[in-house]
Amino acid sequence: MKFTKNAVGRLIPDEIEGRKLRPFQGAFVDNGGGKRTAPPIPVSKPGDKKLLSSLKEAIEAVGLKDGMTISFHHHLRNGDFVVNMVVDEIARMGIKGLTLFPSALFPVHKPLIEHIKSGVIRNIQGSMNGPVGRFVSYGGLPTVAVLRTHGGRVRAVEDGDVHIDVAFIAAPSSDDYGNANGVDGPSACGPLAYSAIDWQYADKVVVITDNLLPYPLVPFSVPATHVDYVVKVDQIGDPGLIVSGTTRITRSPTRLKIAQMAAQFIKESSYFKNGFSFQTGAGGISLAITKILADVMRKEKIKARFINGGVTKYAVEMLHEGLIDVLYDGQVFDTEAIESFKNDLYHVETPMTMYANYHSKGCLVNRQDIGFLGATEIDVDFNVNVNTHSDGILLHGIGGHTDVAAGAKLAMIVVPSYRNRVPIIKDKVTTISTPGETIDVMVCERGIAINPRRKDLIEHFKNSKLPIRNIQDIKKEVEGITGVPEKPKFKDRIITLIEYRDGTILDVVREIDE
Amino acid sequence: MKFTKNAVGRLIPDEIEGRKLRPFQGAFVDNGGGKRTAPPIPVSKPGDKKLLSSLKEAIEAVGLKDGMTISFHHHLRNGDFVVNMVVDEIARMGIKGLTLFPSALFPVHKPLIEHIKSGVIRNIQGSMNGPVGRFVSYGGLPTVAVLRTHGGRVRAVEDGDVHIDVAFIAAPSSDDYGNANGVDGPSACGPLAYSAIDWQYADKVVVITDNLLPYPLVPFSVPATHVDYVVKVDQIGDPGLIVSGTTRITRSPTRLKIAQMAAQFIKESSYFKNGFSFQTGAGGISLAITKILADVMRKEKIKARFINGGVTKYAVEMLHEGLIDVLYDGQVFDTEAIESFKNDLYHVETPMTMYANYHSKGCLVNRQDIGFLGATEIDVDFNVNVNTHSDGILLHGIGGHTDVAAGAKLAMIVVPSYRNRVPIIKDKVTTISTPGETIDVMVCERGIAINPRRKDLIEHFKNSKLPIRNIQDIKKEVEGITGVPEKPKFKDRIITLIEYRDGTILDVVREIDE
Repeated sequence: MKFTKNAVGRLIPDEIEGRKLRPFQGAFVDNGGGKRTAPPIPVSKPGDKKLLSSLKEAIEAVGLKDGMTISFHHHLRNGDFVVNMVVDEIARMGIKGLTLFPSALFPVHKPLIEHIKSGVIRNIQGSMNGPVGRFVSYGGLPTVAVLRTHGGRVRAVEDGDVHIDVAFIAAPSSDDYGNANGVDGPSACGPLAYSAIDWQYADKVVVITDNLLPYPLVPFSVPATHVDYVVKVDQIGDPGLIVSGTTRITRSPTRLKIAQMAAQFIKESSYFKNGFSFQTGAGGISLAITKILADVMRKEKIKARFINGGVTKYAVEMLHEGLIDVLYDGQVFDTEAIESFKNDLYHVETPMTMYANYHSKGCLVNRQDIGFLGATEIDVDFNVNVNTHSDGILLHGIGGHTDVAAGAKLAMIVVPSYRNRVPIIKDKVTTISTPGETIDVMVCERGIAINPRRKDLIEHFKNSKLPIRNIQDIKKEVEGITGVPEKPKFKDRIITLIEYRDGTILDVVREIDE
Repeated sequence: MKFTKNAVGRLIPDEIEGRKLRPFQGAFVDNGGGKRTAPPIPVSKPGDKKLLSSLKEAIEAVGLKDGMTISFHHHLRNGDFVVNMVVDEIARMGIKGLTLFPSALFPVHKPLIEHIKSGVIRNIQGSMNGPVGRFVSYGGLPTVAVLRTHGGRVRAVEDGDVHIDVAFIAAPSSDDYGNANGVDGPSACGPLAYSAIDWQYADKVVVITDNLLPYPLVPFSVPATHVDYVVKVDQIGDPGLIVSGTTRITRSPTRLKIAQMAAQFIKESSYFKNGFSFQTGAGGISLAITKILADVMRKEKIKARFINGGVTKYAVEMLHEGLIDVLYDGQVFDTEAIESFKNDLYHVETPMTMYANYHSKGCLVNRQDIGFLGATEIDVDFNVNVNTHSDGILLHGIGGHTDVAAGAKLAMIVVPSYRNRVPIIKDKVTTISTPGETIDVMVCERGIAINPRRKDLIEHFKNSKLPIRNIQDIKKEVEGITGVPEKPKFKDRIITLIEYRDGTILDVVREIDE
């Protein structure tokens, strides 16, 4: 195998399993070019029926065959029943060697491991949160997996890197023609934004619902123009696991301290002014920053123009209070946010292309002022790992992390300095998920480190009372408490590629050596 | 020139100007297949600016060159300033030989005639209402024009028959990144649905607005992800001509009688039941039918599921009254409808693919029960002409006429039996815009003719008190009053192709012999 060192110093094989790899060259080096891919030309006639009575019938109707690529989406999160039910049916039908192209898998999808072992699933391209990731880390998948960002996943489809043969879309509501939404029905989840690229580009699209409503269903996230078949099943998910009844702000004193420091940093920055924008999520620290920021905004009479979410009731309250004009929403985390998503004109769905596609004419993250992001590790070059833990095991997807970091004017990593006596700051992160050149600041409870590339920020904060420190110093201090943990041991075999949002390879993950 | 007779008996050349023509085979013979076309892969980086200070700068930025294809849309109707202003600028810059691909041209676009004469415009593919159509009829265009239906226009773009180099989109509001809508600003027009296929497929997209609003603009019909440049101009249109303050129901006793007969026919049909759907427009008879139907619906306690519009205040009143659940909207005709379009959750925009694309997986017209449609002529085979008058002059576009006729279960032509002493019913229509196999009924003040193909309808109405008559008999009766007018004289030269929604050729229009 021939390797080339990429722009973040990782050795990337020139080719793997017949795919030629392009090593990462820098966050904004790629300039597009060439043509997008195109789906087949369909036809539909008055009287055509789409409603089928079973998954089996749908799988037959779309002509699923050995070796094809099928896609799924994670808007039902850990409450999803659809992935398992479809792959179980495919297995019963004796179809093998599939590539799974999910936007993300969750712990609920652990049964897929048996389908990998039996050869039904041959490859996975998509986030693997939890048990499937662990299984892949130990060499369980016979092929090399690919992890992409939210923006990278849609880019890969549009550019033709990934061809979806059949997209299966879990729909909390649908009519018999395939107009589907996520806001009505017992399994309501909010937007269906992850599925948008799939219904646009997949050869065949199957909507799976447990709540059939009269045609034409309005509002809709998926349009009937792009759906081949609709299947009604008993239940697409567990409502209690799809959205939480309540999202909660962290109560950890350390995490609250981090949130306060981050909020104060934002307040002192040049970005905190009328019309600013930020990204929030459902994580404990992120919610705490949002809440503290809201208080500061009230006090200083500053209004935000938009939040780019993951949306929770906290963001919705800010919208209703008038602290913010617009909520852009890729997924919601609680029932209040679903209600708002359904009814508020200024709470709009964000398909992933709109959110984060580098190969678009302008996505949302490009116009975002501030993003607060998590990390499993960060290194002294500000490279961030969100995929593997320090034990080297693949447990998380990339999500929009890398996209927001690239786009936001102020990309902040907000993390505790250690977790379970494992320090977060490393000489080199185990896996690079997001390149350091796109990270501006790290905030932990021991101090705030500004990326040396941001001379303007360092200058701006030189008289601040905030504990602005060198990242190396914070690292040493933490290691004085925790010690320096041993590095995980890997075999040679590459089990996963970490693809940057432009399609180049940022890093590889290797099989764990037990 | 070699000709082949198509399924409606018209002689279609095998090839014209290097384009191989496929003769019309029947309304539902085409079965799709092959791949759609694909636009170039763009790129956008944080900090990229799109706002330009003049049209000239935009035309330079997109690299417009001799012989390219540029597109426009008619949501500003006869109030549009944008087509003329862009083509004037292009002419000043010395660019020649362009193909114009408008969704429709109006009388306001008469100045284009000078640009055709001077060679700036070489070809037009799109509806030509009024003076430009007349000019083309007299041989003014050096090449053969193409008329398409609303559904056919989007199909042609998606299938790659028409490549748009630059789309110019008139936007009543836009932000500096190209998120644009039609509901805010002095030139508000409602949906921007005609432009949807263009921003998806054009190589370059320029938004032209007179109302620049803060980023991100919500709601938006055009997303920034698909816009290259934004230009602010003084005024994009004349508000008084964009929408009428009030749309009016016909007061003509003849037309009211036709409306009453049509409404009674609908009431007696099997389609008039809870959950039915129909298409309405802004024409006088169409509005009158809608109003009469609303009264019948109230009396009989029948609710409609959806209206497929052209939406006016009459449809909006029905929505608000609860007589109808959903308004699907491709364009609005009055200010009340704009307000409703902006604020009512169940009043949604219908891009033309969703409305009428035969090469989609299921468009709205396929699910529509009833459509009432106009005609300049109808013949004894129920073929309909909406493009030329009986004098042979090209004065109108096809619009959604052919699409609705193909999709609706009950496609009704509602027309007076003669206009200005010219009978409407012919042995053969001058131009076939919509094939007779897709027309079910003709209603005029002298009687109702059911297409013999619809044996079920004839059977259903055999005991009706309505004046159900043979179309030949009505024709004879009218000719007894008006006489049989002379046929227009044509030269050999073909000046326009009438393309069916599947891309086959339904008819040709020839140059008028003066």
